[in-house]
Amino acid sequence: MAGKDVIEQAINVVGAANVLAGADAAPYGRDWTGKYISSPAAVVRPANTLEVSEIVKICANARVPIVPVSGNTGLAGGTYADGAIMISLARMNAIRDIRPEARTTTVEAGAILSNIHDACDAHDLVFPLTFGARGSAMIGGALSTNAGGSNVVRYGNTRELCLGLEVVLPDGRIMDLMSELRKDNTGYNLRQLMIGAEGTLGLITAAVLKLSPKPRAYATAMVACLSLAEALRLLNALQEATGGAVEAYEYMPRAYMDRHMAHFPQARAPFDDAYDVNILVEVGATAPRDATPDASGEMPIVGYLEGVLEEMLERGEVLDAVVAKSEAQRREMWERREQSAEITLTTPNIVDTDVAVPLDQVATFLEQMTPTIAKLDADAQELAIAHLGDGNLHYAVYPSRDDADLRDEMRKAVDEVVAGLGGSFSAEHGIGLTKLPSMQRNKDAAALEIMRAIKAAIDPLNIMNPGKVVPQAE
Amino acid sequence: MAGKDVIEQAINVVGAANVLAGADAAPYGRDWTGKYISSPAAVVRPANTLEVSEIVKICANARVPIVPVSGNTGLAGGTYADGAIMISLARMNAIRDIRPEARTTTVEAGAILSNIHDACDAHDLVFPLTFGARGSAMIGGALSTNAGGSNVVRYGNTRELCLGLEVVLPDGRIMDLMSELRKDNTGYNLRQLMIGAEGTLGLITAAVLKLSPKPRAYATAMVACLSLAEALRLLNALQEATGGAVEAYEYMPRAYMDRHMAHFPQARAPFDDAYDVNILVEVGATAPRDATPDASGEMPIVGYLEGVLEEMLERGEVLDAVVAKSEAQRREMWERREQSAEITLTTPNIVDTDVAVPLDQVATFLEQMTPTIAKLDADAQELAIAHLGDGNLHYAVYPSRDDADLRDEMRKAVDEVVAGLGGSFSAEHGIGLTKLPSMQRNKDAAALEIMRAIKAAIDPLNIMNPGKVVPQAE
Repeated sequence: MAGKDVIEQAINVVGAANVLAGADAAPYGRDWTGKYISSPAAVVRPANTLEVSEIVKICANARVPIVPVSGNTGLAGGTYADGAIMISLARMNAIRDIRPEARTTTVEAGAILSNIHDACDAHDLVFPLTFGARGSAMIGGALSTNAGGSNVVRYGNTRELCLGLEVVLPDGRIMDLMSELRKDNTGYNLRQLMIGAEGTLGLITAAVLKLSPKPRAYATAMVACLSLAEALRLLNALQEATGGAVEAYEYMPRAYMDRHMAHFPQARAPFDDAYDVNILVEVGATAPRDATPDASGEMPIVGYLEGVLEEMLERGEVLDAVVAKSEAQRREMWERREQSAEITLTTPNIVDTDVAVPLDQVATFLEQMTPTIAKLDADAQELAIAHLGDGNLHYAVYPSRDDADLRDEMRKAVDEVVAGLGGSFSAEHGIGLTKLPSMQRNKDAAALEIMRAIKAAIDPLNIMNPGKVVPQAE
Repeated sequence: MAGKDVIEQAINVVGAANVLAGADAAPYGRDWTGKYISSPAAVVRPANTLEVSEIVKICANARVPIVPVSGNTGLAGGTYADGAIMISLARMNAIRDIRPEARTTTVEAGAILSNIHDACDAHDLVFPLTFGARGSAMIGGALSTNAGGSNVVRYGNTRELCLGLEVVLPDGRIMDLMSELRKDNTGYNLRQLMIGAEGTLGLITAAVLKLSPKPRAYATAMVACLSLAEALRLLNALQEATGGAVEAYEYMPRAYMDRHMAHFPQARAPFDDAYDVNILVEVGATAPRDATPDASGEMPIVGYLEGVLEEMLERGEVLDAVVAKSEAQRREMWERREQSAEITLTTPNIVDTDVAVPLDQVATFLEQMTPTIAKLDADAQELAIAHLGDGNLHYAVYPSRDDADLRDEMRKAVDEVVAGLGGSFSAEHGIGLTKLPSMQRNKDAAALEIMRAIKAAIDPLNIMNPGKVVPQAE
C-alpha cells in the first residue's frame, strides 16, 4: 500500500494536478469489462520518460507496486490495482514522426490507436493493427498485451509490427531499444520479451512501428463453404490467387448468423439460404492495376475476386458467394462481424474464451467441444466466432444455469480440448489475472519456471504489475 | 575441461561411435571462416532430445561447458569450443511432417536447410530462408543465430518463420514450446528469447516452421538508379505495384561491378554503361493471372515488371533496366550477387562488417564512411554490397597495409558511424566472439545488464556456450 510520502514524492515530480487519488482515481480502477474493480492508491500521469523513470524509482524505493494503465480496454484483468500506484501514460501521446520512405512511425506509449491510424492515413500508409476498442486503446497497452485483431492473417500481431521500444525497467533505469531496423542481431531479443509481458517486466514508454502501404481498394465478400476444411482450402486458394493479400478471414457459424438476425431484426441475411460455414473475406490491393476503376467504375480487384469465387461456385467448391459492390455493402458485412461483442455479451454468466488451434484443427475443436459441454450441461448453448485465418476462436458457452463451479468446469474442459489439439488457451487477450489458472494447468512446466526466473531476475522486488501473467510456484 | 568420466558417461548415453575425440573431433573445432580454431574435449552426437537432455545433465553435473554445433557455417566464432563438449545434432535431421493445409513443417534441429527446401518444394510450398551456406547449414544453427539472407524483405528473418520450438535448457530440462499457432499470448515469449541467443540459453532440438506458397513465377531485373534515395523510392513503388511481392532487393555499387568484372573476366556487364547504383530486384508471383504463360510463352509478371520499369525509364526515374527473359539470364543476375564472398574474401586482412541502418540512411552511412576511413588510411579501398530492402550492408574495407590495430580502428569507426545513424553493428551474422567488443561499446547499458541477468537466471552455472554473445560486466 502506497503511503503519503510516496504520493508527495510523486507530486514533486509530476505536479499535484497529475496525481489523482480517491474519487478521481476510481475510474482507473475499473476496466472495460467491469469484472475487475480495484482501488488504486493513486494514479500518476507523467509527461515524459524521465518522469516515468523518477516515479518508478520512488515506488521501487518504497516497495510500492506499480500497475501501468493505458486505455483500460483489456479483457483479462491486467490493470487490477488494489493499493498500487497506477501509472497512466495518457499525457505521453505524441506521434513523434512518420517517415514515409522508411515506412516507420515513432510514437509515445499513450498514443491512441485510431489517432495513429489517422496520422498514417495522411501519408497513404497504414498501421494495420485494428480491433473494436481502437478509439480508446493506446499503443502502449497494445504492445504490452501483444494485441491481435482482424488483420493478423496479413500483417501479424502487434509484436510483428514493432521495430523498436523504449522501456522503463522495474528499478527506474531507461532501456533504449528504439531501433528502426529490419535486421538487428545484437544479443537477446529484449524487445520481444517486453512485448506481451503485460507490464510485469517494465513499462513501455515509446515505440517505433512498422507501416505498410495503404490498400488502394478492398474487395470484400461473404462466402458460404461446405465445411471448415473447405474454408481453409478456400483461404489458401485466395492467398495464392491474390499473392497473400487476404486482410481478414472471419468465420461465422449458422448459430451466430441466427443470433445476429434475432438481435438485429433490421439486419439482412447475406444469402437466400442459411449455411453452416459463413466466411467474411477481405482482400486489400495496393497495385494500381488492381485498384484503378474500370469504365463501369468497378475496381479490378473486386471483379477479380468475383471471378475466382464464380469459378469455385461452378465447380461446387463453395455453396454461395456475394461480393460487396459498394462501401455500404462492405460496411454491412463488417458490422455483422463486429457486432459480435453485443451479441455474445448480452447473456450474463457466459463462458467466453479466446483460444487458438492449428489452422487445420478448428473443425476438430468444435466437434470435440459439443459432446464435452453437453456432458456438463445438456441444455447449454454454444456460440463460436473465429479469426479463421489465424486459428483464433472466440468460443462461448451459455450455461443453462447460473453456477460458478459449472463455469469453471466448462473453462477447464475448453482448456483440455485445446491442449489436446496443440492449441493455446489465450490467443490474443493475454493472461492478466483471468487466465492464471489456465497458465498453471496448461503451460509447459519448464517454461513456467523459466518465466519465474526471468521475472525474478528483472524485477527482484516484484513491484511491476505483481501477480499478473506468471502464476506463483505451487 | 571435460574429464574422462564425462566422456565415459556420454558414451553410455549415445554409444562410443557417437562420441568423437582427438583427430575425429578436430574438424568440428574449425568453423567455415577458418578464423577460429579450437580443440573440443569431445563431440557428442545424440540421436534424440532425451539423449541431448542426458548429455546436458552430465555436463551440468560436472560443470563442463557445452558448445552446440550445427553446420559450422557461422561467421562470428559462435562455435569456438576449447575444452568444451560440443553437441552436434547432425543425427537429428528428420523432417517430421509437412502439413500443406496448415502451411507448417516440423523439423529436427539437425535438418539441413536445402533438404527442408526440397521437402517443401514437393508440396509447392517454400521455406523462404535462404543464403549461400544452405547446403550445409542446419536449421538449429539458423534459429540460434536468427539467420537472415536475401529474402528477408518479403518473409522476415528466421525468427519470423518459426512458430514453435523445443529447447533443452542448461540443466537438461526439456522445454516444450512446439506450438503451431499464429496467435499465442501465454506469457513471456520464450521462443523469441531462445531464437538468436546463439545457444547461450539452451539448445534448440526441434522447431515448427511457417511455410509460404511457392511463387509460380519470378520476374527478375537489374536496374540502374539515379541514387540510393531513388532506389528506395523504386523499392516502395515496386512493393505497391506488386502488392508486396518483392522477394529480393540487392544493391551493388560501381566498385562492386568493377571488381566482379575483374574477378570473373567471362562475366557480362548488365548494362551498356557503368552506373553507381545497380539493383537486383526479384518479384515472386503466386497468382495464376501473373504466372500463366501468355501466347508467346512469357509469364505475365515478367511483362508487368517490364512495363512498370519502362514507364519509369521514360519518366527518367531510373537510368536503365534489364528484365531477365530466361532462367539462364536470371541465374546470371543472381550469380553476380552471390559471388560476393569470392570477391570480398580474396584479399587478406579485409575489414568485413555486417551492419544495418534505417532504410533511408544507407546513403548517409556510405557518405560518412568514405572520409572517416580516408582519415585512418588514405589508400584504403571500400566495397559495399547490401540487402537494400532491409537496410543490411556488408561494407568492407581493404586497408593499404597489414596492421591489426588499424583494422580495429576501422571497425570502431564503422561502429561509431552506424551508432550515430541509429543502426546496428550486427544485422544478421550475430555476436559470437567477434562482435563482443562492439556489444560492450555500443549496446545500451541497461540492455546489457538485463541480458546478463537473464543469462545468470537461466544458466546459473554458465555452461551453455559460455563467453559468447553477452560481454562480461566491466
